[in-house]
Amino acid sequence: MTETLSQTDAATTVTTWLADFESALATGDPDAVTALFAEECYWRDLVAFTWNIVTVEGRDGVRDMLAETLERVRPHAFRIADDLGGATGGDGVVESWIAFDTAVGRCVGLVRLRGGLAWTLLTTMNELIGHEEPLNGRRPKGAEHGAHPDRKTWLEQRRQETEDLGHTTQPHTLVIGGGQGGIALGARLRQLGVPTIVIERSARAGDQWRSRYKSLCLHDPVWYDHLPYLDFPKNWPVFAPKDKIGDWLEMYTKVMELNYWASTEAVRASYDAETHEWTVVVRRDGEEITLRPKELVLATGMSGKANVPVFEGADVFRGDQHHSSRHPGPDAYAGKRAVVIGSNNSAHDICAALWENDVDVTMVQRTSTHIVRSDSLMRIALGGLYSEEAVAAGMTTQKADLTFASLPYRIMHEFQIPVYDEIRKVDADFYARLEAAGFLLDYGDDDSGLFMKYLRRGSGYYIDVGASDLVASGDIKLRSGVEVARLTEDSVVLSTGEELPADLVVYATGFGSMNGWAADLISQEVADEVGKVWGLGSATTKDPGPWEGEQRNMWKPTRQEALWFHGGNLHQSRHYSLYLALQLKARYEGIPTPVYGLPEVHHTS
Amino acid sequence: MTETLSQTDAATTVTTWLADFESALATGDPDAVTALFAEECYWRDLVAFTWNIVTVEGRDGVRDMLAETLERVRPHAFRIADDLGGATGGDGVVESWIAFDTAVGRCVGLVRLRGGLAWTLLTTMNELIGHEEPLNGRRPKGAEHGAHPDRKTWLEQRRQETEDLGHTTQPHTLVIGGGQGGIALGARLRQLGVPTIVIERSARAGDQWRSRYKSLCLHDPVWYDHLPYLDFPKNWPVFAPKDKIGDWLEMYTKVMELNYWASTEAVRASYDAETHEWTVVVRRDGEEITLRPKELVLATGMSGKANVPVFEGADVFRGDQHHSSRHPGPDAYAGKRAVVIGSNNSAHDICAALWENDVDVTMVQRTSTHIVRSDSLMRIALGGLYSEEAVAAGMTTQKADLTFASLPYRIMHEFQIPVYDEIRKVDADFYARLEAAGFLLDYGDDDSGLFMKYLRRGSGYYIDVGASDLVASGDIKLRSGVEVARLTEDSVVLSTGEELPADLVVYATGFGSMNGWAADLISQEVADEVGKVWGLGSATTKDPGPWEGEQRNMWKPTRQEALWFHGGNLHQSRHYSLYLALQLKARYEGIPTPVYGLPEVHHTS
Repeated sequence: MTETLSQTDAATTVTTWLADFESALATGDPDAVTALFAEECYWRDLVAFTWNIVTVEGRDGVRDMLAETLERVRPHAFRIADDLGGATGGDGVVESWIAFDTAVGRCVGLVRLRGGLAWTLLTTMNELIGHEEPLNGRRPKGAEHGAHPDRKTWLEQRRQETEDLGHTTQPHTLVIGGGQGGIALGARLRQLGVPTIVIERSARAGDQWRSRYKSLCLHDPVWYDHLPYLDFPKNWPVFAPKDKIGDWLEMYTKVMELNYWASTEAVRASYDAETHEWTVVVRRDGEEITLRPKELVLATGMSGKANVPVFEGADVFRGDQHHSSRHPGPDAYAGKRAVVIGSNNSAHDICAALWENDVDVTMVQRTSTHIVRSDSLMRIALGGLYSEEAVAAGMTTQKADLTFASLPYRIMHEFQIPVYDEIRKVDADFYARLEAAGFLLDYGDDDSGLFMKYLRRGSGYYIDVGASDLVASGDIKLRSGVEVARLTEDSVVLSTGEELPADLVVYATGFGSMNGWAADLISQEVADEVGKVWGLGSATTKDPGPWEGEQRNMWKPTRQEALWFHGGNLHQSRHYSLYLALQLKARYEGIPTPVYGLPEVHHTS
Repeated sequence: MTETLSQTDAATTVTTWLADFESALATGDPDAVTALFAEECYWRDLVAFTWNIVTVEGRDGVRDMLAETLERVRPHAFRIADDLGGATGGDGVVESWIAFDTAVGRCVGLVRLRGGLAWTLLTTMNELIGHEEPLNGRRPKGAEHGAHPDRKTWLEQRRQETEDLGHTTQPHTLVIGGGQGGIALGARLRQLGVPTIVIERSARAGDQWRSRYKSLCLHDPVWYDHLPYLDFPKNWPVFAPKDKIGDWLEMYTKVMELNYWASTEAVRASYDAETHEWTVVVRRDGEEITLRPKELVLATGMSGKANVPVFEGADVFRGDQHHSSRHPGPDAYAGKRAVVIGSNNSAHDICAALWENDVDVTMVQRTSTHIVRSDSLMRIALGGLYSEEAVAAGMTTQKADLTFASLPYRIMHEFQIPVYDEIRKVDADFYARLEAAGFLLDYGDDDSGLFMKYLRRGSGYYIDVGASDLVASGDIKLRSGVEVARLTEDSVVLSTGEELPADLVVYATGFGSMNGWAADLISQEVADEVGKVWGLGSATTKDPGPWEGEQRNMWKPTRQEALWFHGGNLHQSRHYSLYLALQLKARYEGIPTPVYGLPEVHHTS
């Protein structure tokens, strides 16, 4: 009864606030609106108001954003979204799912009120009015009933499209990179009717996963990893093995009817600012084809371009040496000696697989690493939104994604720190054993743990699925707090002078910024103009300030017209592909998309 | 408020009945149990009590079934299944979802009470205790955390299994026929850990659909067609084109990790009653391989073996002639003259596609046909269980399937007749136009319409998706109430003496009983012993009595030990594969499966 009353109270509070909010918005006076926000406030907008992905902070931020956007956006019909879960209250915060419309879109969001004023507000465009996806009640009929002379069957139409697109007709959008990001975006654009080609260097969709080290499994659990439109089946493993996820991506690409060009490499690209058109030369099965898309998306992966350090003596080393992304697995190295440079996810996975295959393996840890046990991460950090229990309690992927997106990046670490404090307590013995073995641990510059490291720098951590015990026990040998001085014909020499005999050296040394791809494909000039991709500007290690409020250049307009970056883990590929697809669809349909808040570029890589 | 009270009342009534039922069952006295059933009563059991698919009728039927099964089954813990929808009341009938356990299984069902006594009762086994499927909370972890020397990856394990099974190890179950039926069953057996091979003559899964006439789309809607474990995505067409469903089946087969031998034909099979083992010779890519499964499933399709009539003069006819299942589509026949013998689904689809491609086409209707417009069928007959509206109202596939299964065959026509009365009223103009064109219509011997025809004889109808208008308008020429007398070099001569010039003759003349496959593969003796497959014994056209109460020989034990038939439309392939899989799993695990109610054989084909 208490809960019901409290829900009613929460609903009343939210209904009042929404009515006031709508009235204030209708006046067109930003000051009337900001009066409904708390001093400390955050408004995160995904495309609905800004045709951008932006978080504005404080009343000044809200005022500035509305001054530029309100007249055009014409937001209205604000209401509690009961289908998403309505309003709830507790701990002095009233939280509510909301829905509203703009001049062009149907939108949903989440608002949190403190003392009757907005503390956080998330607004997201969900669909463009008049351009809805053909889902559920709108799904295509398939069979065309009636009699139609010269009827083309589904197969004939697909074949025709496949033959024409890129030859006699041009794609509106070209997506370079056919991993999970390019595939998820391709599926969304297909539903939205935007002519799109996705090109991929590998021979088959899914090869991006298949080609990696053989012991690799997803580190994120199944509930976090669904692609758009088609959930993994209920018998899907919690942590999918790489080849299985590869097969799924291949099947998904086909079932979703993507125009997917495998065995195709992008050679060079240039943009004509007069005609607003790209010229992209691709090599498909050896043949050069010139494409002229209006929009170009680089979905080559935040883990696309390998950082390979150049050590003195690398040219004389007689054994095998390769970057972790090219490591084939342990089979060829049984009985031999391996040195793995690095101490993050790939380094740990590779060391463990080598040890399991009877390889004498040493990990060289140069700087500290954040470790979190997979079980603890699932249970304590992710379980509320992405778990079997969450699903059983009525959590949907959409609600989980939006909840996740509703927490402003500026204060997200405050919610993360207690989570990792708890994990450190629960796993104290585990961490003590690692430290006793000499392993250098950290929990992020501000102890905010794994997810903040991922958002800020995309590196610096290992989700432990077993290798840490091998490090603690000394089965995987460890040299920590050292640098590599040089390689010899048959060894790695450390900065301490110690010489590690080696038949194999693996550089588990991470990946560069995605605008490096733009440098290769387009020009250094464009890469510099666009600037660094990824990171929040948090002024923490490998994420220099100033504060950006959002991830740099991801899923939103860049300083290069018609150039976009898409990627991230499966969760991000799923969720943010929606907003990127809506931005591309609007441009395809000629719907005006004035961008609010295009940021300055502070770093070129 | 009325509804809530009524629900409470309904729940009270059901709770009381279930408690009485459980007490009566516990006494072990069948008479105590039958007192809880109405004079007119039907108990349909899917494997839970009978290790069979059986409907017993009347108190005598209930008494007989319990006398044989009760002691062994030990049913207990009867309760209202609130997760399935609980109890509801109306029109003098209280209906409730129920759950209970037996000595070996977890079961669900549906009971309908009239005057406090059971009128219809459905009991179904849902899972074997201790052999639950690895779904949702039980899903496999995928990654094997920890350090495991000689760890085999998922891919290595799959490859090993693929190399071994059928060579150094034997399948427990061999499924012959890799269409939707074999695939759905294969997926269930995989989840249940029963070593299984599915063999298929075609080169790829899905070719059974791809190879049919090019205009073919499913006549059943998407909500009716889901396979186990993995629903079609929400953008899937209502009526899937044949090539698209083919691609889906191929992908499903791979994702579900079936051991699927394509390009493989069964050559001959024999059963050793001493060793309880089959010897099955198959030809795979030209090579003969001998398999020794314990259980053999014929899933070659109720539409597997073509009925090809032998007309005088067929040998001198110079044009093309083929059975509808081999018809390639209209492309080669533009400007030519075609005669299609038959007037059911395939005949109509083929005639329409020929007409659309500028072929002069005549349909020869020998006997009356039941026609129902697709829109009317979806809206009036199927919509309550299988539609977007039903899904939106909380209907799940499981609940729809069980509701469908809960209506006893003996009285099902009583519920169907009003549906088709309504359709005849709504579509009166449509039917009048057809009759005016000379088309011979029927609605089933007792006016019970399409679904009863499907269950009784699997033929005799067309779901209209456009061809009927062409028949009514005379665009598709019609000759009705006639027989084919003979063929000449370039024509079809009718019993009226009329001669129809023809470049193409299509025999849309249907398919034989599935035990014909057993005759070909095993022996005529076994085929005769097993008897006719399909049909209810309704004593209507093409479904001779006596009354069987269930479909003959489908998904349940036959008179030949360890020989099973599986098939039907996608709905049946999905739903009944569960019960067939549980029967096979129990045998694999050595759980005793005494069969109640193995019927007499009254017809050999």
